[in-house]
Formats: sequence, C-alpha cells, structure tokens
Amino acid sequence: MAELFVVGIGPGRPDGMTLQARAALDAAELICGYPAYLEQIAALYPDREFFSTPMKQELERCRYALEAAQNGRNTALVCSGDAGVYGMAAPVLELLPDYADVEVEIVAGVTAALSGAALLGAPLGHDFCVISLSDLLTPWQRIEKRLRCAAEGDFAVVLYNPSSRRRADHLQRACDVLLACRSAETPCGLVRNIGREGEEKQLLPLLALRDTEVDMFTTVFVGSSATKEIGGRLVTPRGYRI
Amino acid sequence: MAELFVVGIGPGRPDGMTLQARAALDAAELICGYPAYLEQIAALYPDREFFSTPMKQELERCRYALEAAQNGRNTALVCSGDAGVYGMAAPVLELLPDYADVEVEIVAGVTAALSGAALLGAPLGHDFCVISLSDLLTPWQRIEKRLRCAAEGDFAVVLYNPSSRRRADHLQRACDVLLACRSAETPCGLVRNIGREGEEKQLLPLLALRDTEVDMFTTVFVGSSATKEIGGRLVTPRGYRI
Repeated sequence: MAELFVVGIGPGRPDGMTLQARAALDAAELICGYPAYLEQIAALYPDREFFSTPMKQELERCRYALEAAQNGRNTALVCSGDAGVYGMAAPVLELLPDYADVEVEIVAGVTAALSGAALLGAPLGHDFCVISLSDLLTPWQRIEKRLRCAAEGDFAVVLYNPSSRRRADHLQRACDVLLACRSAETPCGLVRNIGREGEEKQLLPLLALRDTEVDMFTTVFVGSSATKEIGGRLVTPRGYRI
Repeated sequence: MAELFVVGIGPGRPDGMTLQARAALDAAELICGYPAYLEQIAALYPDREFFSTPMKQELERCRYALEAAQNGRNTALVCSGDAGVYGMAAPVLELLPDYADVEVEIVAGVTAALSGAALLGAPLGHDFCVISLSDLLTPWQRIEKRLRCAAEGDFAVVLYNPSSRRRADHLQRACDVLLACRSAETPCGLVRNIGREGEEKQLLPLLALRDTEVDMFTTVFVGSSATKEIGGRLVTPRGYRI
C-alpha cells in the first residue's frame, strides 16, 4: 500500500514545524509543493527531489503527488501553515477515489491564524472565525455574508488572503462590513511574513485598518468587542476575573 | 530580563509539538501547567520541576509562572493544543503589567481544531468558526448567538468543550440552533482523545450528532452546506473544479 503524506509545515521558520511533519518529510523521496513553500524547506533537504507547480495549478500538483504514491514512491505534499486550512488536504481527498491503492495521511501544522496570533499576543483567546478574502474560488457575495455574520456574532476574525494586485480593495470592503457592527476603535492587528525574513507586525484600530495597504503575505486580525490592547499586545480575554 | 514561555504543546502525542515548543521546554528549569498536560510531557522531562494547579485555578498557575520568571528562573507554562486558543496566553498577558521585569514569548501549537480535522479528513478546507460550549466564563446566551451567526454564515464549525457532567445537554442545544439553518443530513464528525490513548473518531449526520453523548475530551466538527463525506472522510472543498 502506497502512502501520501499531506504535510502542514507551519509558518516560515523551520522550527515552526511539528516533529511529526519533520519525520514525514525526512522519510519522503519526493516532496511536492508550491515553489515558495519548497524554498522554505530547501535548506533542510538540499538533495531531495522536489516537484512544484505554480498557483492555479494546485490540482496538477495533487495529481502528481497521488500518482507518485500510486507508483510506490514515498511522497509528501507540503502546505504552508496547516495541511487542511485552505490547504491541499481537501483537493487530495477529493481526487483520492481515482487512486485506489493510495493511503493518505494528513499531518496538521500551525496555521497563520495561530502563528500570527502568537506574535500579536492572544487575539484568539475566545471564539473566532477564519475567513479568506480571496474570490478566486468563492463568490464575493458569500464572503461578504460570512463577514456580516462574523460581525453580528461578535467573533474575533482572522482574514486570510486579504489582498492581491487584482483585488486591492477587498480589505477595505471587508472592514466596511465589519464596521457596521463593530466600533471604529476595535483593536486590530496585521502580521506580515510570519516566521520569514521581513517579519513584521502592527496594531491598529479597525478604522485605520480599513485604509491600510496589505499584500498577500499578510494575515489580518480583527478583535471582538472584548479585545483589548495590553502593553502593545492584542488580547481577547476568555473571561477570567483578573 | 527574565523570560516566560507560554507554550502550546499540540495534541497529546509528543511529536505533535513544534520544534520551537520542544526547544522552549528543553530550556525551562520549571514547567507549569494543568496536571493532565504535564502528564503528557512527563516522559520527556522526567527530572524537571513541575508545578500544577487544578481547573478553575488557572490564574494562580499563571501568577506562579510569572513570579518564577520574575525571580530569574527559566520558566515555561504549557497549554494543550495552542497557547492562545482558549489557552493561558490571554490571562498571562492580562496579568503581565504586574510583573514589569518579565518578557513573555508565546509559542503557538496545533490546536484541536487542526489536529482533529486532520484525523477526520479536511473539514476546515474553507472558512470556519471555533466556538466553545463551556458557559463557565461565558453566558449561554452569547454562545447561542454565536452558534446562530455561524449557522447563518454557513461556516464549518468546530465546537470545543462540547459537554461536561454539569452541562450534559449543551451539544444538543447547540445542534438545535444549527439545525434551524442547516440540513439534518449535514456531515459532522467527532474526535475523542486526539493523539492520546483511546483516540477515536466518528462521522455522523447533524441530526444524529444532536443525540450523541460526548465528554470534555471530545472535539466536534459540523460541516458547512458544502461539506461532503468522501471515502469515510469529512471534506469541505475550497472550490477547485475536480
């Protein structure tokens, strides 16, 4: 029985990976992934066979990995952060019925919501939502509906893919939806290049976030009504009586 | 400058920890935590000084760790899963202003939403919410409001603390709220004792979930309208054309 490991490699830093992820990669003859993620681990595996496809060719990448596993090769498919959160675990499992001999193991990793939160403080100390602002595969209407519900539910909100060249105003539009339910002063945070060169973070109120330019390497955190700034950090208390 | 590491140790299995978490624990003279979490790492650190307090004495545990760090001891405070998600990062940062000499570093970990999802398949392949059903520190009304908003927004939903002896019907009540917006056939999943002895998982429709007994070691996943069961796994597609 051939096995394919779909591995979340965590944020950029090599020690952000779990020991289980590291062991899965150690054992793989072939490692597949998006070019930037393979770069992230290239120093750890200088002599390993890598296979990559660019963005929008995710399915080709998944199929290549499944075929390699079917052919008996120890194969890993890496994802940034977690394997499941907007990652390759879902498409691999959707394609799997075509590869009857392959067993798939999903190896979880630290997604940007968690690694970014740790850098900012503890913005996810209570209930939260994770929403991608990318409308490549999701109609904007559905994204806006989810933002509205997240705002009404007073969740802390993490925004993935907040912007790209093609959709420069998505964060602004998202903030406008959130501002309908939430104070302009709501403490928010940005984290850029988590665990990579050029890592930076910023705390700012929701109204200022609305007019901030972000790129696709940024993860955005919007506080709930309970979120506070304490000593330069973003904290959403769980409710302990301090 | 004294330093306190607040460390997410991931699910139960020792290799579910990140290398960064492992290094922080390796360097600590004193490791503080809830007894069950210290047990989880006891085999790795048989000769280390441990300090624990029972449930509902979380603040005492945080203060003890902060005081030890203030006194110059290399100290780590461990949390199950992630350090931030319903973890000790928030209360530590709330208490920190009383300990002027202490630097706090938060080390993220794989929270049960991610490790549980990996066991079930890829239920969090698209937008999702994380909600705790514990009303120890949160009024039930607020929990119910969040459930309603999560249902209206068609999020995949992860439920933490779905039950305890004192509140045996919380999962049932939560399912009733979700059933108002979501089909009785919605694919759902349960994971129990993730990464520990007795690990088990189960897939079942939302209506059956409503009448299932769960304990406090269970994490519950409720699919969105897009979630499917494929080959015995729970998958929420991101929208790739398979």
